[in-house]
Amino acid sequence: MKDITYFDNASTSYPKFERFYTETMALYENCGVNFSRNDSDKSKDGKSIKENLIKNIKYIFATKNEVILNSSATFSLNEIILGLDYTNIKTVYISPFEHNSVYRVLKKVVKEKNIDLKILKFSGFNLDFENMKLQFMSKKPDLIVCTHASNVFGNILPIENIFREGKKYSAITVLDSTQTAGVLDFLEISKISDFIVFAGHKNLYGPSGIGGYIYNKNISLKPMLYGGTGINSEDEDMPEELPERFEAGSPNVLGIIGLKISTDELLRIGIEDIKIRKQENITALYDLLEEYSYDLKILSDRENNVGVISIEANDYTPQELESIFNDEGIVTRRGLHCAPLAHKHMETEKSGTLRLSVGYFNDEEDLNKLREVLESIF
Amino acid sequence: MKDITYFDNASTSYPKFERFYTETMALYENCGVNFSRNDSDKSKDGKSIKENLIKNIKYIFATKNEVILNSSATFSLNEIILGLDYTNIKTVYISPFEHNSVYRVLKKVVKEKNIDLKILKFSGFNLDFENMKLQFMSKKPDLIVCTHASNVFGNILPIENIFREGKKYSAITVLDSTQTAGVLDFLEISKISDFIVFAGHKNLYGPSGIGGYIYNKNISLKPMLYGGTGINSEDEDMPEELPERFEAGSPNVLGIIGLKISTDELLRIGIEDIKIRKQENITALYDLLEEYSYDLKILSDRENNVGVISIEANDYTPQELESIFNDEGIVTRRGLHCAPLAHKHMETEKSGTLRLSVGYFNDEEDLNKLREVLESIF
Repeated sequence: MKDITYFDNASTSYPKFERFYTETMALYENCGVNFSRNDSDKSKDGKSIKENLIKNIKYIFATKNEVILNSSATFSLNEIILGLDYTNIKTVYISPFEHNSVYRVLKKVVKEKNIDLKILKFSGFNLDFENMKLQFMSKKPDLIVCTHASNVFGNILPIENIFREGKKYSAITVLDSTQTAGVLDFLEISKISDFIVFAGHKNLYGPSGIGGYIYNKNISLKPMLYGGTGINSEDEDMPEELPERFEAGSPNVLGIIGLKISTDELLRIGIEDIKIRKQENITALYDLLEEYSYDLKILSDRENNVGVISIEANDYTPQELESIFNDEGIVTRRGLHCAPLAHKHMETEKSGTLRLSVGYFNDEEDLNKLREVLESIF
Repeated sequence: MKDITYFDNASTSYPKFERFYTETMALYENCGVNFSRNDSDKSKDGKSIKENLIKNIKYIFATKNEVILNSSATFSLNEIILGLDYTNIKTVYISPFEHNSVYRVLKKVVKEKNIDLKILKFSGFNLDFENMKLQFMSKKPDLIVCTHASNVFGNILPIENIFREGKKYSAITVLDSTQTAGVLDFLEISKISDFIVFAGHKNLYGPSGIGGYIYNKNISLKPMLYGGTGINSEDEDMPEELPERFEAGSPNVLGIIGLKISTDELLRIGIEDIKIRKQENITALYDLLEEYSYDLKILSDRENNVGVISIEANDYTPQELESIFNDEGIVTRRGLHCAPLAHKHMETEKSGTLRLSVGYFNDEEDLNKLREVLESIF
């Protein structure tokens, strides 16, 4: 029997693949020296692990663009949004589902530069496409930053429609794939995304502390960090070479090894199969919650959902509900989920919601446990 | 027999403590959910691991100031140097031994703000104290950024003299302890340092991907990253609360666990004992290299050295020497070591040096291996 029932995969996936736990530290023990900072064989071993990780990531995102590795999706979004050249960026569009790692950063840019920040019109989870077309015509999009799926409600956004329309105006497009990398297909989307941000520790099943982004190098970008890169040390400026320009400091060797192993396993199982399993889990969770439709309000849609369900209960606050679940070893997450914009849009900002998010590893035992607790309180 | 002879501990310590390898992943497997993002027991377990890590760090630096955790020393130095309020900072002093993670960042500030960047006068490894006093009198120090020990030559800098003199002028003091945290005593220095930057993966023997800084919260500082913090999500700005203000994004749980275990072990062994062992290793290495003083020039001092020796050979370039060593499984590092300023000061910038850096785990076997190779080429 499991010691916890984990429905908080939108925060971080748990557990990870067995191979991740058994192989990561052994490899770090074997070749945990800095990559490419010297010419030792171990350094070369490390370098080849990184090269294989990059290969995996390019495959997952169906891209030939550059892969930049860093510490997190939050870091990536900050580097991109703060590092762009705003000379020709006047109007920025976002969805109403953006996380604070996008919204707070853009609010900072609004304060410092002369930009207009606009929120695309959605009715519930549905983009008002005609409205967007008119908006773009009246104020052309120079930059569009959009999440691929809401971390609060799980709804997958119509990125192709948004970015394709934006590209008619040569908008720079930034996709936040934090909730979708490792689950959805990026073949079409990667063609129209200048940046795709990812976290290693969510649906890629890697460790915390590593993330990055796919980078269309034709877009001018300033690095966020200045420091040592192992090349061109004599220059006072950061090198132009990629990825070094954006990877100052000692590399996160442990994170690189962990994410390499987890993405190996992800690709061995197959993203399509992982998606199917996630879909089964979301369907089962939805079915279960629907049985309590008299007591619970399900705010997420069943379809087009990446694996996140937000609920409200009639007789319990999200905090009370989380606490009841927690006492029974069921991990969920209440509140605003660092995405007040999404809650405001769905009119749940006052008390937030309780969020249940599934992963590849949820099973019948988890659902039975949840049923047991729901049965006892409703 | 070891499979490599590792003399590159100034890049990253290797190996780590046995406990780090055996316990880190088990703990991550057991409670690898996000800290403080929900109220689950596992989240609380994680939180207590973080609290214990903070306790260890405060003990190591003999401080009651705030501890901020992030991805690296490079990140820390960028956040501090770029995040300070330069309204009243006109003159900045650094040592001639600064790493590019200080020098490149300050060069960026020089370009953007009206500051004067001055390099303290050293004769070799010796601070010209009288000159500094005169310099400070003629242009008062508003900010001093100084490495505790050179990552190229190992010389420990007279921080107490520099910072104490600077504090007479109310200078903000930033110490880069990348090479010294976990080896030297900080009791006096922490009292006169507003910021002390550390890396987790060097002499603290933790994993790559985690670092941070000690922060005197009376100094105004802007965060480098905007994003989710798990608190005050409704605010458009980052919260004032510490450490949340400076820790946007999902925490590096694996890094926190790893560094907690390594610092537990460090403190169990005792920093004094580790320092003694390191000193023995540096003495033995120095003695060995001195035997080849006809063929080698030792550029570092034997005394007052944190464990790093730079050498030049008469008949081999640093690159050739590194390559010869590497063929025999001896890991060193040649070049500029991301610290061109230090090489310029010591007039080794043209071809760089070969650097050998010892750690706690070096032993006679390593020295014998090195002797064998030296014997074969000289």
